[in-house]
Amino acid sequence: MVVGCLVTYEDKVLLCKRSIEPSYGLWTLPAGYMELGESAVEGAIRETWEEATAMVEVEAPFAQLDIPRIGQSYILFRARLRTLDFSPGVESLECTLFHIDEIPFDQIAFSSVAVALKYYVEDYKAGKFKVHHGVIDKQAGASPSDPSGFVVRNHICF
Amino acid sequence: MVVGCLVTYEDKVLLCKRSIEPSYGLWTLPAGYMELGESAVEGAIRETWEEATAMVEVEAPFAQLDIPRIGQSYILFRARLRTLDFSPGVESLECTLFHIDEIPFDQIAFSSVAVALKYYVEDYKAGKFKVHHGVIDKQAGASPSDPSGFVVRNHICF
Repeated sequence: MVVGCLVTYEDKVLLCKRSIEPSYGLWTLPAGYMELGESAVEGAIRETWEEATAMVEVEAPFAQLDIPRIGQSYILFRARLRTLDFSPGVESLECTLFHIDEIPFDQIAFSSVAVALKYYVEDYKAGKFKVHHGVIDKQAGASPSDPSGFVVRNHICF
Repeated sequence: MVVGCLVTYEDKVLLCKRSIEPSYGLWTLPAGYMELGESAVEGAIRETWEEATAMVEVEAPFAQLDIPRIGQSYILFRARLRTLDFSPGVESLECTLFHIDEIPFDQIAFSSVAVALKYYVEDYKAGKFKVHHGVIDKQAGASPSDPSGFVVRNHICF
């Protein structure tokens, strides 16, 4: 189970440029494997600290995205930056707040992150945040960051 | 990861009386371990079929409840009964629709189920369903069904 935060500040989203493989040099949300003994929210806050040295307040569940082919499930929360003090952790080359109209969708590290950001932008523009569930079917052999290497099915939101 | 459905029909909820340990003879929601290669929704629908022979339509995410002490995370969906044809599967002694005011809260199999049902009744009476996240801290040695053997912390809902 992978847990993380969709960190927001006004009309911006915090992304981290990866300093490690896979998807070195591409942008991701702060997220990583949940550890034994912690909750999903605790793990998401920990990962956000480790990857972006950012202090956040978790506001709401945002998305649960399953990738059955690789046995991963992403649980992402919407979180608000507490302060504008953030800086790249060891797994990040840089961390940047992107305006929602300037998200680099052609340089996103993982399909799950691309899907979550797409839903976030849609919700933001509709003026109403939802909670999303979806299944990502990856094509065999597609790289994690290939924007044409997956499809989303069974999207339900509330 | 445990996935399941909070199955509803009008002002009623479908519960299954367990025919297996732990918590033999107590009431639970149809839920069980997610299998490799399936999504959370697919697993929840499968478990509902296996435990209650019920056909459901999943409507929305409802709750994600973590129990860090035992390394479990519950993902529960709200689902609507498609037909009133249901009957106990091999892991159930009986399956019954309970009016929300008649849920047997003193005979619930698991803390996670008790918490989810409590949130459901609250949402139902408030006229607005939310999506919930919470952390269940179990007391060492408490049985799974002990209503005083746990506390919920970090409840966030949206």
